Amino acid sequence: MIKKVLIGALCGAVILTVGILIGNYGITKSGSSAPSWVKDVAKDVDENFIEKFLAEVDNMQIQANLKELTKVPHMATTPGDEQTVEYVLKRWKDPESGLDDAWREEYMVYLSFPDPENPNKVTVVDPSNNVLHTVREKEKSYTPDQLDPEVVQPYAAYSPAGQAQGKLVFANQGKVSDYEKLNETLGSLSGTIAITRYGGAGRAAKAINAAPFGVVGVLVYTDPLEMNDGRMSDENETYPHSWYLPPSGVERGSYNTHYGDLLTPYLAAKEDTYRIHPEDITGLPPIPIQPIGFEDAYKLICELGGPPALDTWQGGFNCTYNYGGPGFKDTSAFNQSDVKLDIHNIEQVKSSANVMGIIRGSVEPDRYVIYGNHRDSWVHGAIDPSSGTSVMLELTRVLGRMVKQKLWRPRRSIIFGSWGAEEFGLIGSAEYTEQYFTRLSERTIAYINVDIAVFANATLKASGMPSVQSVIFKAAKQVSAPGENSISVYDNWIKYSNRTSQTHGTIPRMGYLSGAGSDYAPFVHHLGITSIDMSYTYDRSKTSARIYPAYHTAYDTFDYASRFIDPGFTSHQAVARTAGNILIRLADSLLVPFNCSDYTEILKVYLNHAVTLYKSELQAQNIPMKPLEQAVASFETAANHLEKVIRDSDLANETPLKVRRINDQLMLLDRAFLNPLAFPDKYAFRHVIWASSSAGHPTFPGLADSFVKANTSGLTSDWERVHYHVSVLSQAIEGAANTLVDVI
Amino acid sequence: MIKKVLIGALCGAVILTVGILIGNYGITKSGSSAPSWVKDVAKDVDENFIEKFLAEVDNMQIQANLKELTKVPHMATTPGDEQTVEYVLKRWKDPESGLDDAWREEYMVYLSFPDPENPNKVTVVDPSNNVLHTVREKEKSYTPDQLDPEVVQPYAAYSPAGQAQGKLVFANQGKVSDYEKLNETLGSLSGTIAITRYGGAGRAAKAINAAPFGVVGVLVYTDPLEMNDGRMSDENETYPHSWYLPPSGVERGSYNTHYGDLLTPYLAAKEDTYRIHPEDITGLPPIPIQPIGFEDAYKLICELGGPPALDTWQGGFNCTYNYGGPGFKDTSAFNQSDVKLDIHNIEQVKSSANVMGIIRGSVEPDRYVIYGNHRDSWVHGAIDPSSGTSVMLELTRVLGRMVKQKLWRPRRSIIFGSWGAEEFGLIGSAEYTEQYFTRLSERTIAYINVDIAVFANATLKASGMPSVQSVIFKAAKQVSAPGENSISVYDNWIKYSNRTSQTHGTIPRMGYLSGAGSDYAPFVHHLGITSIDMSYTYDRSKTSARIYPAYHTAYDTFDYASRFIDPGFTSHQAVARTAGNILIRLADSLLVPFNCSDYTEILKVYLNHAVTLYKSELQAQNIPMKPLEQAVASFETAANHLEKVIRDSDLANETPLKVRRINDQLMLLDRAFLNPLAFPDKYAFRHVIWASSSAGHPTFPGLADSFVKANTSGLTSDWERVHYHVSVLSQAIEGAANTLVDVI
Repeated sequence: MIKKVLIGALCGAVILTVGILIGNYGITKSGSSAPSWVKDVAKDVDENFIEKFLAEVDNMQIQANLKELTKVPHMATTPGDEQTVEYVLKRWKDPESGLDDAWREEYMVYLSFPDPENPNKVTVVDPSNNVLHTVREKEKSYTPDQLDPEVVQPYAAYSPAGQAQGKLVFANQGKVSDYEKLNETLGSLSGTIAITRYGGAGRAAKAINAAPFGVVGVLVYTDPLEMNDGRMSDENETYPHSWYLPPSGVERGSYNTHYGDLLTPYLAAKEDTYRIHPEDITGLPPIPIQPIGFEDAYKLICELGGPPALDTWQGGFNCTYNYGGPGFKDTSAFNQSDVKLDIHNIEQVKSSANVMGIIRGSVEPDRYVIYGNHRDSWVHGAIDPSSGTSVMLELTRVLGRMVKQKLWRPRRSIIFGSWGAEEFGLIGSAEYTEQYFTRLSERTIAYINVDIAVFANATLKASGMPSVQSVIFKAAKQVSAPGENSISVYDNWIKYSNRTSQTHGTIPRMGYLSGAGSDYAPFVHHLGITSIDMSYTYDRSKTSARIYPAYHTAYDTFDYASRFIDPGFTSHQAVARTAGNILIRLADSLLVPFNCSDYTEILKVYLNHAVTLYKSELQAQNIPMKPLEQAVASFETAANHLEKVIRDSDLANETPLKVRRINDQLMLLDRAFLNPLAFPDKYAFRHVIWASSSAGHPTFPGLADSFVKANTSGLTSDWERVHYHVSVLSQAIEGAANTLVDVI
Repeated sequence: MIKKVLIGALCGAVILTVGILIGNYGITKSGSSAPSWVKDVAKDVDENFIEKFLAEVDNMQIQANLKELTKVPHMATTPGDEQTVEYVLKRWKDPESGLDDAWREEYMVYLSFPDPENPNKVTVVDPSNNVLHTVREKEKSYTPDQLDPEVVQPYAAYSPAGQAQGKLVFANQGKVSDYEKLNETLGSLSGTIAITRYGGAGRAAKAINAAPFGVVGVLVYTDPLEMNDGRMSDENETYPHSWYLPPSGVERGSYNTHYGDLLTPYLAAKEDTYRIHPEDITGLPPIPIQPIGFEDAYKLICELGGPPALDTWQGGFNCTYNYGGPGFKDTSAFNQSDVKLDIHNIEQVKSSANVMGIIRGSVEPDRYVIYGNHRDSWVHGAIDPSSGTSVMLELTRVLGRMVKQKLWRPRRSIIFGSWGAEEFGLIGSAEYTEQYFTRLSERTIAYINVDIAVFANATLKASGMPSVQSVIFKAAKQVSAPGENSISVYDNWIKYSNRTSQTHGTIPRMGYLSGAGSDYAPFVHHLGITSIDMSYTYDRSKTSARIYPAYHTAYDTFDYASRFIDPGFTSHQAVARTAGNILIRLADSLLVPFNCSDYTEILKVYLNHAVTLYKSELQAQNIPMKPLEQAVASFETAANHLEKVIRDSDLANETPLKVRRINDQLMLLDRAFLNPLAFPDKYAFRHVIWASSSAGHPTFPGLADSFVKANTSGLTSDWERVHYHVSVLSQAIEGAANTLVDVI
């Protein structure tokens, strides 16, 4: 009986189990089984993957990339440039470690070159027209790199061709105030040649500021005080003995005020695109200008006559800097002599290529994270820009391999851009954003720019909109700083540069992207895309160099980079890891990792500065600041609210459309700050918070600049312009708040 | 044994069943049960709901709305206007049939009114300054409506105040060519007063065109030929005997060229917003101008001396229209007399309200369908705009009730806008779009405008971007046309107005939104939002009236509307049903119901016209049209591809992010056609396909207008402007194609 009962119970149990199994697996729960995409859409960033990525980033690969990229000079549109186009394309199309797709895009752009057949000349000529001195036309060779026939003669791109001759004067940095001072002291500058030093004013500005005073030509040189911490001797002090600039080194550069192709404003520079007349370009030097080395500048400046220049104008030479008689002093061999510029620059419309590469997003392919750097250099460009390109190629190698091995595919699409002709004015990136304006505006989460990856190997330096501060910090905390003591990039950074935040306490100090120093400019200023620019940089207790000394010279070579900038390439590696970590987080996070409150904090800082600096005078002018104060308050309320919505949501289990909605609010935040009419004189500066400003105050640029103008002129129309900017700003910030509040 | 076996089998079966039940319901299938939102996100338009909606739309409710809205004159910012604000708010806040939320938004806007204490005067004065004739200051009363003291004197808003006196001349429609002809014929127009008829040129243009010829004042009247099919007698021919305009009726209007608040271009007109100086407003009449009735115009024109005017200038009066001596003929009692204008208009910045109401979307609340109409009228405004407002209030009643009863909630959010101060230049809608520029640009699927709902009761008339043609047709097919024969609105429409489409064969002819005739303008031209404007309109075989004759007069009353325009309100009902059907489809369809191929078709029509009209001359000028041809081809390829993607997708079962992606491509299509710099002289016209044009050709406006200018002047700089427009257009169309191709 027991046996029967047992058998019966056993049978029952078996039948029950079979039933349960049938019930569980055999019946399709109609309508209630989750489609496969339910899990996909909730996909978030994978911290293990980030660990893996960090481990894979290899300093020796970066070094190898740099070696390859710097084989020959690769100035925009030269054969060397084409070689780099093909190299980047080859890497991005590699079947093992390439991207999903890669291609080149060409633009026909307006460039300016010296004439190889007829080099630019700067001479000292006596009254009988005898040449007493000729400025060096090429930099001195220390390594075989400088012997490459493709090394372009030092020149000022977009300087007009022409001859200029006159008595020399010393005009400090070529600021308006410098020429005013000089003019006041000497009575007249008419017919003079001004020698100026780099810094203080933009390159083109040194000539633009000079012309109204009757100056007929300008020279520019790098003073050893600003670049070499005073060192001048190539016997033992300068490269190849150190990172300092040899006496014959000359900083090349683009001497234009606006960015993008100069003949096709706001249009992509395609073959048949309408072009303005070259004579209608604004912001170019109206008179010949030429950069020279301090070896020659020394010979000219120390011979100048006239009264001694102001103390603040004195530089690193072991002589007194005089203003000039005009001209040289009586005791000089150059007495009575002129300085003569023969400039033979040629403008040409040439085809420049961007190289584009993509990794398609798996869940939201219509959301882009763009990562870019320019590819063109002035000479070999080891640091500028190949350090950045080497980092980018290491990122694409590591990520490309993961994609090819099917180990990873980002949630959103990643676009890599290797921009052409940046050195002439951010041309490749500007034309790209002009061509794809709508599409990029609508879909781009963020742009990351790593141009010069390593200026020096002391600390991270990062700039960006305040909303990306948190993701940069998060990434920087996960990466080890180069060097012996194994602290994080973040902990190292905070030691070099920090500030006190009301919300966060002491944190590393981030910079803003208010200028147009690299290819982030069209993304930030023309499209209003949240952007980041980063690099490793100096220990300011060790050098006061304006920038790394070989910048834009023939000495910016692989040898220079690997011996003096980043031996071992560990700073490159740290930048690659940090930037790549950020890139992955932007591409993979379920919630776009932007923090609105950090934006609020900076808007409040800006507002406080504006109130302190301007409010009482605005009141006197009957211009209410209340709308601006209200707008910042609206922004704060809206930002806090959105962050509460985010905190209160279980995003991984919410409808994907709600997550998308919040992400769109975050993505489009910066678009709200665009106003295409606010700055009619500044090409493609539309972002009313981050536009460039000359007022020198950390506050709203349109307000700051218009205030300075009105306060100087006292004109009613200028004060009205201030009121206009208060309205533009207030309404833009209210508009931004409107995008952060509940969507309806 | 059998029994035992049976019992055993039974037990086994029971246990098995229990097991199956446990297996099926007792075990949570971890990770595989569908979240509740999976069904929600696939929600599509419900045809049963549409049926129900159509059945609910009630003509008698629309009639009652109109009765209420037209109780008193409600010109912008008057007490009558405030009454309508409160009425609309009350309706939208109704607990039974109101919306989710409703509120008012105020703007401080620049308006122009006659001085009630000092009415405008037009007189005929003889050389001794005796007044021989005074033009009627108010329209004659036929119903008590015209006696309301709030009926504003007929006037030209924004005419400058001032006195003008001179000999009268007849200037036809006041076009530039009219003044040229007149000037040529008479030798000089200096010091004259010109009388012009409505039509042919914009209101302000009649004065702007006149001033350069020395004309000092302008009168405008409505010729019975154009408005009354020749009828002139109020004894039996005109209102209240028919819909025709009584002799004393005067069309009021806004005499400005640009739209939006004139003192705050591109900024929302808030209290503290920066305002330009009134004297810096462009596009206003530089000389006094005043509209008069044809009763008075008859007395003036038929007395004019000088040679008989061209045949094409002759109108409906039973006399020969002469040019004027200048002045009256010798045989006239007015011989030697002047016409004198005393204009006392006052400009005021006043507070105007929009009323806003919303129904929150259930699935995609961050996508908006906006439906709007202005609320302000010139007098009682039964047709303009209250016919449209009555329709809107019926839509909100029906939809609001469904929402309150929880029978329905749209997938996307619906925003209703009752705009203020449209009659003065689309001010309420323009300020709204300026204030919420970013948010609306980012989120708005479409804007539907129903201003005058019923001009006449013959047929539907609809205008919009080509992409909405299909959804308009679909809706129109589901609604019965008013009248005995029960055909659809669509079948009725095609009888009155049709065209042959290459793709669709014979279809109703849709119009384009290339002007700024109503509140769609800021949505179309400033924001690039896909828009629709619709109404019921004339049987052109029965009348050639320029518009319904009581337009902008004191006769546009409930009596007029219900007796002559739409007795029974069945045309109102048909418009409400059609517009509501479209609104529901736009708000509820899983896939946004836009058709890109229909856009392609019209771009090709435009291109073909451009090729025919301009190509050979452009070739001669070395301006390649190839980029434009290529751009249209790119658009066609991209549109076809996107439609294939849609056809090949099972959208209801796809990831909701894919559906959203396609919908975003469709939503943002028109944004790609925006260029804020293309038309610097046309306020807030940024849409390069639909901007206004004076060239009179159905092709790209910037190209057409610049071509006319260049072809007339022959100037190189004008031809360059043509080239510029070819580039702007080509790149905009390529940009649009770029948004339709695969997203990466």
